[in-house]
Amino acid sequence: MSIHYKKTSEHKVLRDPVHGYINVEDAVIWELIDSKEFQRLRRIHQLGGTFQVYHTAEHSRFGHSLGVYEVARLMIENVKGLKIALSETERVAVLCAALLHDVGHGPFSHSFESVTSVNHEAYTDKIILESSSEIHQILHRADGNLPQMVADIISHRHKRELLTQIISSQLDADRMDYLLRDSYFTGVSYGEFDLFRILRTLRVVDDELVVKESGIHAVEDYIMARYQMYWQVYLHPTSRAYESILHMIFKRLKDVAFEKPEILNMLPLFKNLLLNDEVSVEDHFYLDETTCMYGFMMLMNSEDEVLRDLTTRLVNRDLFKYQDVESEAMIESISTEVESKGYNPRYYVVMDYMTQILYKPYDEHEGPKPIRVLKNQELVELSSASQIVKGFVLQEDKEDFKVFYPE
Amino acid sequence: MSIHYKKTSEHKVLRDPVHGYINVEDAVIWELIDSKEFQRLRRIHQLGGTFQVYHTAEHSRFGHSLGVYEVARLMIENVKGLKIALSETERVAVLCAALLHDVGHGPFSHSFESVTSVNHEAYTDKIILESSSEIHQILHRADGNLPQMVADIISHRHKRELLTQIISSQLDADRMDYLLRDSYFTGVSYGEFDLFRILRTLRVVDDELVVKESGIHAVEDYIMARYQMYWQVYLHPTSRAYESILHMIFKRLKDVAFEKPEILNMLPLFKNLLLNDEVSVEDHFYLDETTCMYGFMMLMNSEDEVLRDLTTRLVNRDLFKYQDVESEAMIESISTEVESKGYNPRYYVVMDYMTQILYKPYDEHEGPKPIRVLKNQELVELSSASQIVKGFVLQEDKEDFKVFYPE
Amino acid sequence: MSIHYKKTSEHKVLRDPVHGYINVEDAVIWELIDSKEFQRLRRIHQLGGTFQVYHTAEHSRFGHSLGVYEVARLMIENVKGLKIALSETERVAVLCAALLHDVGHGPFSHSFESVTSVNHEAYTDKIILESSSEIHQILHRADGNLPQMVADIISHRHKRELLTQIISSQLDADRMDYLLRDSYFTGVSYGEFDLFRILRTLRVVDDELVVKESGIHAVEDYIMARYQMYWQVYLHPTSRAYESILHMIFKRLKDVAFEKPEILNMLPLFKNLLLNDEVSVEDHFYLDETTCMYGFMMLMNSEDEVLRDLTTRLVNRDLFKYQDVESEAMIESISTEVESKGYNPRYYVVMDYMTQILYKPYDEHEGPKPIRVLKNQELVELSSASQIVKGFVLQEDKEDFKVFYPE
Amino acid sequence: MSIHYKKTSEHKVLRDPVHGYINVEDAVIWELIDSKEFQRLRRIHQLGGTFQVYHTAEHSRFGHSLGVYEVARLMIENVKGLKIALSETERVAVLCAALLHDVGHGPFSHSFESVTSVNHEAYTDKIILESSSEIHQILHRADGNLPQMVADIISHRHKRELLTQIISSQLDADRMDYLLRDSYFTGVSYGEFDLFRILRTLRVVDDELVVKESGIHAVEDYIMARYQMYWQVYLHPTSRAYESILHMIFKRLKDVAFEKPEILNMLPLFKNLLLNDEVSVEDHFYLDETTCMYGFMMLMNSEDEVLRDLTTRLVNRDLFKYQDVESEAMIESISTEVESKGYNPRYYVVMDYMTQILYKPYDEHEGPKPIRVLKNQELVELSSASQIVKGFVLQEDKEDFKVFYPE
Repeated sequence: MSIHYKKTSEHKVLRDPVHGYINVEDAVIWELIDSKEFQRLRRIHQLGGTFQVYHTAEHSRFGHSLGVYEVARLMIENVKGLKIALSETERVAVLCAALLHDVGHGPFSHSFESVTSVNHEAYTDKIILESSSEIHQILHRADGNLPQMVADIISHRHKRELLTQIISSQLDADRMDYLLRDSYFTGVSYGEFDLFRILRTLRVVDDELVVKESGIHAVEDYIMARYQMYWQVYLHPTSRAYESILHMIFKRLKDVAFEKPEILNMLPLFKNLLLNDEVSVEDHFYLDETTCMYGFMMLMNSEDEVLRDLTTRLVNRDLFKYQDVESEAMIESISTEVESKGYNPRYYVVMDYMTQILYKPYDEHEGPKPIRVLKNQELVELSSASQIVKGFVLQEDKEDFKVFYPE
Repeated sequence: MSIHYKKTSEHKVLRDPVHGYINVEDAVIWELIDSKEFQRLRRIHQLGGTFQVYHTAEHSRFGHSLGVYEVARLMIENVKGLKIALSETERVAVLCAALLHDVGHGPFSHSFESVTSVNHEAYTDKIILESSSEIHQILHRADGNLPQMVADIISHRHKRELLTQIISSQLDADRMDYLLRDSYFTGVSYGEFDLFRILRTLRVVDDELVVKESGIHAVEDYIMARYQMYWQVYLHPTSRAYESILHMIFKRLKDVAFEKPEILNMLPLFKNLLLNDEVSVEDHFYLDETTCMYGFMMLMNSEDEVLRDLTTRLVNRDLFKYQDVESEAMIESISTEVESKGYNPRYYVVMDYMTQILYKPYDEHEGPKPIRVLKNQELVELSSASQIVKGFVLQEDKEDFKVFYPE
Repeated sequence: MSIHYKKTSEHKVLRDPVHGYINVEDAVIWELIDSKEFQRLRRIHQLGGTFQVYHTAEHSRFGHSLGVYEVARLMIENVKGLKIALSETERVAVLCAALLHDVGHGPFSHSFESVTSVNHEAYTDKIILESSSEIHQILHRADGNLPQMVADIISHRHKRELLTQIISSQLDADRMDYLLRDSYFTGVSYGEFDLFRILRTLRVVDDELVVKESGIHAVEDYIMARYQMYWQVYLHPTSRAYESILHMIFKRLKDVAFEKPEILNMLPLFKNLLLNDEVSVEDHFYLDETTCMYGFMMLMNSEDEVLRDLTTRLVNRDLFKYQDVESEAMIESISTEVESKGYNPRYYVVMDYMTQILYKPYDEHEGPKPIRVLKNQELVELSSASQIVKGFVLQEDKEDFKVFYPE
Repeated sequence: MSIHYKKTSEHKVLRDPVHGYINVEDAVIWELIDSKEFQRLRRIHQLGGTFQVYHTAEHSRFGHSLGVYEVARLMIENVKGLKIALSETERVAVLCAALLHDVGHGPFSHSFESVTSVNHEAYTDKIILESSSEIHQILHRADGNLPQMVADIISHRHKRELLTQIISSQLDADRMDYLLRDSYFTGVSYGEFDLFRILRTLRVVDDELVVKESGIHAVEDYIMARYQMYWQVYLHPTSRAYESILHMIFKRLKDVAFEKPEILNMLPLFKNLLLNDEVSVEDHFYLDETTCMYGFMMLMNSEDEVLRDLTTRLVNRDLFKYQDVESEAMIESISTEVESKGYNPRYYVVMDYMTQILYKPYDEHEGPKPIRVLKNQELVELSSASQIVKGFVLQEDKEDFKVFYPE
């Protein structure tokens, strides 16, 4: 028996500079957008510290989440054979999953997660599954099976991989939105690729999304866009300099939480989190960048010298400088120098190793599936159909190892 | 004797999606950008509550201020006769004024200012003139006369009106940047006009910036862009619904500050401001939207029912609905209805009257000067040279009077 | 009984920079595009002599015709209530009419038409209705009634005005495409407006396309775009200088055709046309800008001095200069001067009066219907709903009267 | 002694959608643009038969030539150290060379050149050096040495390679303009790259233009753009199908010119060229696509069956179909089939082998120099500094071998 899902009273649109409009016709999507847990995403930057180098990168995970929903919707509408391959429940569940995939994100995600043992994926799961959240209630009201189904799609637990593939794979709605969106809001052109060309050349074969041979060039362009965005934007040393200070603030806060908990008296939320390592879904709602930034601004007058100095640097953009790491001796020499200036290297020498793999042609047990191409009626892995991608795969992975420390 | 201003070690650029790049070659500009008071502008939205309706309008006054600087710089470079009309000191002062014109802005400006007696212009003046600010120190180090000169240009006190005209007039760097920028970040195309065409047709005549006749069409387009942005974006009822709640929160806070000051104990900064009506330059630094939003989030659990309800509505986007005001009887009937539902009309019925004048052809004592056109060697006022603008002027001013209240 | 129209074997797309893609799913449209009469439109510039001032305005009526088809298709898809209001035959007929509305266009239309008594509308009718054309045969094969129906829609003879309104009215697919397209290919931004916003706010009321009140701003912007494109592009004096030479070449050719027909021996097509005043559908195929330009290049070596001089000026862009006409005495004085230099004023003094009406609020017997707005459940004429448009209407019509003559 | 070159009376601009404006301040450039030989470039498509597949690719070599001039001008203005490295004469000569580099181009260049023994480079040389051309006269009037110098720069004969490198190398003004321009006019996004980023990271080292290490990503993007444009646009099989018919028409014309010269009586220019194999600079002026297209349209009624059929196919877009060549047997079988249908394989079976090398890391005797990168104070070849480019170089060259023949 198929469930009938309510439609919105009229076709709703939200103006969006990246996709023109976000189109909504399912009532459950409209209600989810209005939920407090989804509105919370307005208080988390999409790109962490990137706005320190590209000053207009101030966009939030709220807009990105709407964008992933819209790309998933466009896929279902435009990829030949996809709409018909999905039941009505699956269609709605995939759209909800696209919208909600980032809902558990904490502030400044990577730096923040490093001090707690619970990652954002786990919170996403909890927010969708625990009955106290508005999101859970909205999903449950629409269809009692929806919360579990949506959570399963997001967390790669759903048995039909096609559903997950739409929102999380090497060619998915998530990446397709963020490349275009981050490109738009930073003002670089590197992330642009031809979304509609890709949608027009995707097909469903053996319950898997694959690319027709005529779409290879568009996919090559998309992979090049990812590569360029990684090195020009996501891994830019200036935002890593900002994030390295963030990281050190959280590290110091954690040390302090046990040693001198009174320092956190004015920041009850932080105190609670740092001492307990995990927070409830209710408290998670308050864990956003507003709370963190306010906390940092208060700590600019803290009695703890390290916190006082690091938060002042962060708020006023007095960032660490950086160098490529060439040897262990170099690190030691920097540590000595930093210490001689009165800084504790535990908080003032930050090592940061980055590598990014453009595209993986094989199917790791936990990793993303390779992109497959329909060539002369057979499915072949992308790098055997594209010389450009083969070139990418043959290279050594590009690496970047830097050390950050105060001037 | 002319002062020599230091140049940056190399030509600096900041990527900006609106202007391509922000170009900096004067060391004093680079240092001002790095000052803590200028960095603070990252924590104030350019468009207040507009992001509640155009979800990507999350850009800050920081980017706008850089943009006004860049447009002023482009004017000096591209307007024939302008560069030569300015002394080196005047050139630098105008660029600093363009960059700093918004530096005193408080959070959610209009709602916020309504509860204190000091407006953002006064804070801008103080931040530039008081020796405790980093901005003052940077300006003073470059040239002892600069702080006063920059403050005078911003506040329309400078005797050479041409300098002020560049950054604050009916055709100025401020408006030219914000129309383009707000258009880009909301995703509407209404605010676009041909900046370079305008720059190429401006001239300096009798120490005044005027438009060549061949530039009239571009100026008409700019005035139309302003008109459209006002009614499509700036005065959109949804952002006014958000701002009416903001306004009521501040109103309640002010009432409470005197009646039940203990409610503000967790928010010392608010308490201080509300009781004293004015803050020091040092405290002003902390008055930003991070602080306010954090305060609102804390007040979601306040013992004061009005504050608890209003802040919950604001944070979770449960906005007031609205109607066009048609009579006084209608307001009374709404008030009665609101009261019958247990709400205090003092905080739950908000009247909001808006009007916007497209362009003023006359020279009011405090108002902006009209735009003048060079036509057959004579200066004429724009509306006598453009039939389109004459049409605008002949109309009654467009008005919009709404009442906002809970559903 | 309803006719079933064949679909293309797959969804066909043509890449188009203005609309992204031209989408074709009806076989009859695909066949019409391939017809020789439609391919001929590639040999006629969309903007006559405009490429003499905006050098990239080299686009043809072929692309514009595809664009009008696409906008009509978008209207049918996106305007609420329109698709359902049309029978399948009407839908196909409107799309064919949109595609074919310009198919009778001659070279350099206005200059060219001035020397023959048959206008391009008449040729459009003939090409669609006469059985010798490929276009007629394709339409007839799809449905015997289609040729007459398509011709009737284009020529305003069809009794259901809604069908014509889609492609020819004050807010139609023709204008909506050309403003966007001419804007793109000239590189000016003046012609841009928000097509999708307009489509989303159109409704079908009493079998008429009307605008919802919320769409007024987008329509104001569209009318402003038309105004700007007229004065910045379409009526630019430099393209009129080019066209005034064209006009004089045709005038001289017509004079010569009767006086010295041997001069046209190398140009049999011209000779035929000029002596007979009308050509067959077969000969019309050859009447394009290639033929004309070739003719002009041959005439650069003609024994007729006027033709030799004028064609050399045209080909090598040695254009006439121009002045605003202020009095009859001025014209006489220019004529005397021109004559004194050895030029015959009949071919060397060209008067050109231009006026453009932005928008007409009344319903002339032959003119376009006014745009109507749905406001509080009633239909009102646009200028009573929009102060901006009212301002346009109240103005005197803008006029431009110039005289062109050799330097 | 340095020559002083005249400036234009005011800063001249031509609106250009690709670069915003073409800026001209040197009188010699302005006069060259107005010359008849330069105006002739309006009558030659930039992309040959590409408009048969991307219907808006109707732009001419005129716009491209202006664009190459503008990019060269931008390089001189923006590449650190370049302006100062050039004498005033060299600056002017490079700009003239950029503007004039394509001035000898014939119609449908590659197909056309295949039937004559003189290529377009030779005509460019002649037009600049022979005193009968307007171009020569303008250059000579500005500076007696200029014609030779400009011709030498274009033809790689000038001893200072830096001058040639600006307009013809693996990273030159020619390619940078055409990628952006062809991308704009076809409507594909593949050709876009960050021109200003490249300009900002170029440097002059050892009298050679090299890229700073920080510019590598922008150069990678540019090389990827070239690759994509080649396979998506320049080598698209549909335009090659069009060009294969063109080629066969010229082949047949050449055969016929000797066998049945009377067939060409109506086309004296063609006759002259085909019999003599070379034309004078005066006749070259008439050799453009207008003349060719007119000739083809006349030949649609020729008594020669092959010419009649092929020109009808070309004009009405009844193109050849194509297949990948897999064996010699396949070609033979196609030839037999074609012959059996009454077609002469000499004109109806066209083999077309294409290969494109993305980037060459070595310095062939006649080929372009490799791109060199300034890395840690040393110059290294691009593919040893960029893993992406190394990947390109390691691949086999992409090949495409097709046979075209009638359906």
